[in-house]
Amino acid sequence: MLLTRKIEFSASHSCFNPELSEAENQALYGAEANPQGHGHNYLLEVTLRGEPDAVTGMVVDLKDVKAILEREVVDPMDHRHLNREVPPFDRVVPTTENLVVEIWKRLEPQFASGPARLHSIRLYETDDMFVEYEGR
Amino acid sequence: MLLTRKIEFSASHSCFNPELSEAENQALYGAEANPQGHGHNYLLEVTLRGEPDAVTGMVVDLKDVKAILEREVVDPMDHRHLNREVPPFDRVVPTTENLVVEIWKRLEPQFASGPARLHSIRLYETDDMFVEYEGR
Amino acid sequence: MLLTRKIEFSASHSCFNPELSEAENQALYGAEANPQGHGHNYLLEVTLRGEPDAVTGMVVDLKDVKAILEREVVDPMDHRHLNREVPPFDRVVPTTENLVVEIWKRLEPQFASGPARLHSIRLYETDDMFVEYEGR
Amino acid sequence: MLLTRKIEFSASHSCFNPELSEAENQALYGAEANPQGHGHNYLLEVTLRGEPDAVTGMVVDLKDVKAILEREVVDPMDHRHLNREVPPFDRVVPTTENLVVEIWKRLEPQFASGPARLHSIRLYETDDMFVEYEGR
Amino acid sequence: MLLTRKIEFSASHSCFNPELSEAENQALYGAEANPQGHGHNYLLEVTLRGEPDAVTGMVVDLKDVKAILEREVVDPMDHRHLNREVPPFDRVVPTTENLVVEIWKRLEPQFASGPARLHSIRLYETDDMFVEYEGR
Amino acid sequence: MLLTRKIEFSASHSCFNPELSEAENQALYGAEANPQGHGHNYLLEVTLRGEPDAVTGMVVDLKDVKAILEREVVDPMDHRHLNREVPPFDRVVPTTENLVVEIWKRLEPQFASGPARLHSIRLYETDDMFVEYEGR
Repeated sequence: MLLTRKIEFSASHSCFNPELSEAENQALYGAEANPQGHGHNYLLEVTLRGEPDAVTGMVVDLKDVKAILEREVVDPMDHRHLNREVPPFDRVVPTTENLVVEIWKRLEPQFASGPARLHSIRLYETDDMFVEYEGR
Repeated sequence: MLLTRKIEFSASHSCFNPELSEAENQALYGAEANPQGHGHNYLLEVTLRGEPDAVTGMVVDLKDVKAILEREVVDPMDHRHLNREVPPFDRVVPTTENLVVEIWKRLEPQFASGPARLHSIRLYETDDMFVEYEGR
Repeated sequence: MLLTRKIEFSASHSCFNPELSEAENQALYGAEANPQGHGHNYLLEVTLRGEPDAVTGMVVDLKDVKAILEREVVDPMDHRHLNREVPPFDRVVPTTENLVVEIWKRLEPQFASGPARLHSIRLYETDDMFVEYEGR
Repeated sequence: MLLTRKIEFSASHSCFNPELSEAENQALYGAEANPQGHGHNYLLEVTLRGEPDAVTGMVVDLKDVKAILEREVVDPMDHRHLNREVPPFDRVVPTTENLVVEIWKRLEPQFASGPARLHSIRLYETDDMFVEYEGR
Repeated sequence: MLLTRKIEFSASHSCFNPELSEAENQALYGAEANPQGHGHNYLLEVTLRGEPDAVTGMVVDLKDVKAILEREVVDPMDHRHLNREVPPFDRVVPTTENLVVEIWKRLEPQFASGPARLHSIRLYETDDMFVEYEGR
Repeated sequence: MLLTRKIEFSASHSCFNPELSEAENQALYGAEANPQGHGHNYLLEVTLRGEPDAVTGMVVDLKDVKAILEREVVDPMDHRHLNREVPPFDRVVPTTENLVVEIWKRLEPQFASGPARLHSIRLYETDDMFVEYEGR
């Protein structure tokens, strides 16, 4: 059974690779390359896999899930400029693709020993675009 | 090919296990344990798997699907207090997890011999939390 | 200038007037009359009117608004059966119309002396139906 | 990793099979059979599978994806009557099921040699019904 | 107090004025001028003004409102080609603006003598564009 | 009659008043004060008032409206850090309240002589908070 919890955070980012020239960055990322950064209301869906407990009827305690998501993702990333304040995005371009890999790395160990395992994460940069990742 | 139909129902429930003490219920379910019940507008997504018919171009007649969902889920559960009026929730805690198992049991036989099989169901308790089930 | 903050709460209610017969209640409210109650995820939009402060650029501090909404509406109503646990709904039928009047009575004094006055409230019972009230 | 881009188009269609009698069409499709056509705001979600590039951090350049979707789907179908103006729907009933097959045929070759392969498409006819297809 | 009920219908239309040349129609309406028509899932919000009844706590019986909206708007317009099947759109261009005027004319008399008067209607042609009308 | 067009832009901002101390900024704006900035997907609704033209059936040509919104709002603000790149937000705190005043100033003259006047603008900073402004 899969259980999904959504959570939001607002952050700035620049899609700018310092190893490339400014012209190359412009060609690659267009307006996203603006080094001052621009921002999004990111919507994150975290999906866990597990079985409902025979006594509680719950796969996992949602209060625990929320606490983990806030501690590992929202607290360090919300209201931040990702490139300037949230490693490894000082040296890794914070595309949505690289963001889901980083969020997976932060969340996967938190669920490694509990009643439910991390199954997949989906991150919406805008309503019209999202990335989904299962850890490989 | 997968075809999904959404449907809504409004119901009350208490997350309260009568085999546990009130303190244990409070610790487990928090505000959800209030035995008077509270309510949700549940959103159910029912996904069927099948092939489009060569003549009709349809996997399944959606009028039939809607009739099954109304007869098996909406009529017995809509505007009801699940714990008090909808078995087995007099003895099974109506968490979202247990609800999807029960809805699966009700729907799966209805599609066992038709042109499309039940593939998965997704149930949103709120906009921020949903459970998905494929029958195991 | 108008500033609106949304907030949600989940509650049960029965649309049942104890002064009327059961047949009259059924005729009036249909499935909503079930005395066990059924539930909704209520979505409340609270609109304040004021001018942005010349120094802060804010009409009102949103942290204060959120604290008021939680203390006056969410804490007493969320995860409650309105008819059984939230006066005056032990004697007033908790239709959406009567709910907005009660929420107005609770919120209006809280904003009577601050930088922004309560302008209107909108309450969604479901996605398809909402009521709007300006205090008269 | 999966990356999804949404795009919309507005089109008319009739669910009417010219090989069947009018009574058979009515029985099959109900109001959808009206040969004058009726319309929808179709929402299309196109999902690609690929790996983020080590330098750019992107699975695929979204500007390229958007250009392909506009050239192959939106330009020929938006603001069109599908049965009358968009082959093969002069002879294939434009049900949502047949539409996803046709859209798959148009899109799959466009991504056959690029950094990301077409993984699945989802088409919403209305908010309450959608079809998902993976090419078989 | 204002009470709003939403309802949807799917229809085709062409924005094409037969008194103008084809070039003028193209210049005015662009792709909307295609005479074969294209379609939308129209979302209609109907707002009534009234006072909650002291006994029932309701401004109006929502079952009655729904029946009126279905009889006056959905039944004649849903799954129709507006220009070809729904007068006066054989001679009046069915822009969203002209549609709200026609819907107002159909609905206003239905609420002229009941407990609640028609206050305004809002019609979404797409998620991104809507028109609102108060009868003048 | 009122006609509304929605449009989105993504931007970064800091709610930080350089005339105040850092402690005062923290107390006022909390996490919003981070001078590196954070971002939002802003949703702007622009409402015009006018009468439908007798020949065209349109209040205004939506292609013109879109061109004005893109030239005056989206092009200068999208993918920008408002405080650093969009005057007057180098000296005016870019709260949502101050943003709507600035957007009004930019848009109102554009519609001063056309067939439809600017009636109101609504700006969503997140799904849960929006500000509405009518020019005074």
